[in-house]
Amino acid sequence: MAGLRCALLSLLAAAAAAVWPQPQSLLQAAQGGCRLRAGSFRFGYADSSAVGPGCSVLDEAFRRYWALLFLPGLEDAGNAHSEDPCNELLVSVTEPGCDGYPSLDSSESYKLTVSDAQMLLTAQTVWGALRGLETFSQLAWRDDDGVFRINKTDVVDFPRFPHRGLLLDTSRHYLPLRAILETLDAMAYNKFNVFHWHIVDDPSFPYESVTFPDLSQKGAFHPTTHVYTARDVKTVIEYARLRGIRVISEFDTPGHTLSWGPGIPGLLTPCYAGPNPSGSYGPVNPILNTTYEFMAKFFAEVSSVFPDFYIHLGGDEVDFTCWKSNPDVQAFMQKMGFGEDYTKLESFYIQRLLDIVSSYNKGYAVWQEVFDNGVKVKPDTLIHVWRENAGTYQAEMARVTKAGYRALLSAPWYLNHISYGQDWMAVHQVEPLAFEGSPEQKKLVIGGEACMWGEYVDVTNLTPRLWPRAGAVAERLWSNATVRDLQDAYRRLGDFRCTLLRRGIRAEPLFTGYCDYEYNAF
Amino acid sequence: MAGLRCALLSLLAAAAAAVWPQPQSLLQAAQGGCRLRAGSFRFGYADSSAVGPGCSVLDEAFRRYWALLFLPGLEDAGNAHSEDPCNELLVSVTEPGCDGYPSLDSSESYKLTVSDAQMLLTAQTVWGALRGLETFSQLAWRDDDGVFRINKTDVVDFPRFPHRGLLLDTSRHYLPLRAILETLDAMAYNKFNVFHWHIVDDPSFPYESVTFPDLSQKGAFHPTTHVYTARDVKTVIEYARLRGIRVISEFDTPGHTLSWGPGIPGLLTPCYAGPNPSGSYGPVNPILNTTYEFMAKFFAEVSSVFPDFYIHLGGDEVDFTCWKSNPDVQAFMQKMGFGEDYTKLESFYIQRLLDIVSSYNKGYAVWQEVFDNGVKVKPDTLIHVWRENAGTYQAEMARVTKAGYRALLSAPWYLNHISYGQDWMAVHQVEPLAFEGSPEQKKLVIGGEACMWGEYVDVTNLTPRLWPRAGAVAERLWSNATVRDLQDAYRRLGDFRCTLLRRGIRAEPLFTGYCDYEYNAF
Repeated sequence: MAGLRCALLSLLAAAAAAVWPQPQSLLQAAQGGCRLRAGSFRFGYADSSAVGPGCSVLDEAFRRYWALLFLPGLEDAGNAHSEDPCNELLVSVTEPGCDGYPSLDSSESYKLTVSDAQMLLTAQTVWGALRGLETFSQLAWRDDDGVFRINKTDVVDFPRFPHRGLLLDTSRHYLPLRAILETLDAMAYNKFNVFHWHIVDDPSFPYESVTFPDLSQKGAFHPTTHVYTARDVKTVIEYARLRGIRVISEFDTPGHTLSWGPGIPGLLTPCYAGPNPSGSYGPVNPILNTTYEFMAKFFAEVSSVFPDFYIHLGGDEVDFTCWKSNPDVQAFMQKMGFGEDYTKLESFYIQRLLDIVSSYNKGYAVWQEVFDNGVKVKPDTLIHVWRENAGTYQAEMARVTKAGYRALLSAPWYLNHISYGQDWMAVHQVEPLAFEGSPEQKKLVIGGEACMWGEYVDVTNLTPRLWPRAGAVAERLWSNATVRDLQDAYRRLGDFRCTLLRRGIRAEPLFTGYCDYEYNAF
Repeated sequence: MAGLRCALLSLLAAAAAAVWPQPQSLLQAAQGGCRLRAGSFRFGYADSSAVGPGCSVLDEAFRRYWALLFLPGLEDAGNAHSEDPCNELLVSVTEPGCDGYPSLDSSESYKLTVSDAQMLLTAQTVWGALRGLETFSQLAWRDDDGVFRINKTDVVDFPRFPHRGLLLDTSRHYLPLRAILETLDAMAYNKFNVFHWHIVDDPSFPYESVTFPDLSQKGAFHPTTHVYTARDVKTVIEYARLRGIRVISEFDTPGHTLSWGPGIPGLLTPCYAGPNPSGSYGPVNPILNTTYEFMAKFFAEVSSVFPDFYIHLGGDEVDFTCWKSNPDVQAFMQKMGFGEDYTKLESFYIQRLLDIVSSYNKGYAVWQEVFDNGVKVKPDTLIHVWRENAGTYQAEMARVTKAGYRALLSAPWYLNHISYGQDWMAVHQVEPLAFEGSPEQKKLVIGGEACMWGEYVDVTNLTPRLWPRAGAVAERLWSNATVRDLQDAYRRLGDFRCTLLRRGIRAEPLFTGYCDYEYNAF
């Protein structure tokens, strides 16, 4: 415990303006600082900017960050001095575009300068400007007299990986819309840029399909209180867009689909006990044309509802027991010459599904089993590495990239797995590129995702279980590979956690101590 | 996971009226049930009752439980039928006394009958009546038409152990008053009857002492926002009393006292580095008369502020390093003939402290080290068994009771220790009397406590980490030793957890699933 106690003491002596995740380059004067006044401070567009007033993404962000800087109870009551250089942060974006969606290729780099002369944030895109605004908001600090200040600063920043995701599971427990929106807020504070929405699974089907309303009517925990309407989904997508976050939906098949069964009779494989159907159901039935007709219609809807180029198609943990028990499936295997190799049947299904989704001009991500089982996928497929116990995940990363596929890492970042103590440290120390491979292979690692599976998590415990732990993943994916000093990370993350509390995010403590502004739970 | 999935299915098919913790005897008609109407239902005192209107404990409880039965949104809009036997629960208490405090010896037994003729709750004391009201509130269920009903029922109930405690640690993190009060509510729902308030420790001293205000002025995280005023403490004690809960305060010495130092110069032992003081401090300095003069005054205040007969005096984890380094302590050891045995010095201190506290006509509880180190304590001392790794706790329970002391068990119930999955099951399966010993020894086990130490817990995560996990301890301490069926416990605890959500307690899920009324987090 001695080491932790020392870390605590250094936390109390923390510099006023730590930033999480650590920028690529941050030069900050140690003292002084220009005064930020609620009465006069504003965000503005630089004359040189390609976007200006009316740009939804930045107009909204200016409002949000103004409120975060000067939270109720935190206003600086000092009078305005018009000559003050801190009266305005000017934002300049070089590339037009305010109404689109961020993508895997979007630039998120930015430069931020606070000098005696002016405060200036420049970025190629509005998405980069959003990242810079977040950094700016974290640079403001409060001196002993309660005055808000920002020190002379130069930041040059960009993400190490372009895909920095967080997975929420809304099937094992339903998460109310507000919990998802709050998570998107906290994601933006951490510079996450992908919300992986594992929206349906075995236990429930909360996605309200326009084409197949019975899916949620019969498959959700409750057909009206535990569903996401089309309007809810639109709300999530727009809320995310305004924060520079992509929404990648996952409709996992052919396994993990029990909840699809009640709404689409005939979709799931009837399992047999000996010569007779047992009454229970297995994965999607891959031998029927009706299956693919349904999937074609369903994914046509999904492709149009979710604007992101990528759809996550799942493909994990297919249990062959039920398929093996079914005489029609057996006959199909025979006919197709698959022998006893049910991975071939799985591949057959996935192949056809991928073709369907490709025809809608979508890209896809799949869990690693699809790759492991040798399914032929398009070269631009994202392979999502999650298995912790089937060899090392490093070996899997090597195999996936050796085969020329792009890889997403989640195996060491299952944040639903909890243990006593500061488990964020191991999460932080993960190095995604620490596997045997060529520089070309390393370039195929486009990022990773923190996963919060829902077996034991719902709205009651989601937020403190996610934050600030997921911040460790956020920093690993954004910051330079050299940012590995745990003592320093402890200090900054503890500071950032207090910031989260001030912003209304119920983030749990790292260790013994306190924040000036504790979470107001009541 | 298959077993869990089965358990889940049985949860969905749960009977409407499970009770947690399981009563000693519960006979319940499977069907039908009398209708409870918000418009007409009331609690009343039976003519035979020794207490009546004006009895603070029951008047308040009637208000609380009426509100819990008919929560907003849950009212039954049906019209009153005056002939309905469910219009009134009559309460009869045989022993007068509404303004006192519950104690270790208080009876908490009760009988509850719901028949065609009437609904009657009888108890020896108001504390027993409170337990019966809680059971009654859990027996009400809602049929498919949304009508509240209560089935014909006979309950004969009493606790297996008289001391059923929950420890909160308000030193490692400060818990706002409201969080403590909410915990007391949830404790009452679980029939816990002791709030062990580990109020101060190394990191902070939030207790505002009237006699020594510098203790919190200089030892709290913050002298005004992170303290418990005398009024706060009174509020906690009265809130607990109205729920039949005793408040046992712990002022742990001579170790775990770093936060006492700034307020009371000279109280802590100066540590030495070689021949010179190092500037750091160790445990309370046991060789100075001023120490005992301070303790006498301080515990005089504590004894009068906290009405319970017992004070917890701590005595755990005394680190001898600092004492050993101090030449004055070394000389004292010499003078006293203690040789190199610093447990003798610890005993010397504890002995004098116990004498002081005894002189205020208080009993005391101590952590097991005080017993392990052979300190001579009064025969009625409670020995609190907490160590998991120093041999088995069962062996310690055997030693403590063999020596004739009463024992409290906490070792297997450190709920701050978390792990992935359903860890409440191991907590539930603990059998406090499963140690080698005579029937007389077993009788000396007066109960136990769930502990929620605060290293990683504050107001952001306290409630979901406590509930419903602590409920497993509550059932073990209240219910018959034979209540060990985990399948049944899973069903009832899942049901009870939904009840907690309805009552506004942010209790986390046991596993995949949902409640009709989810927690309203926003």
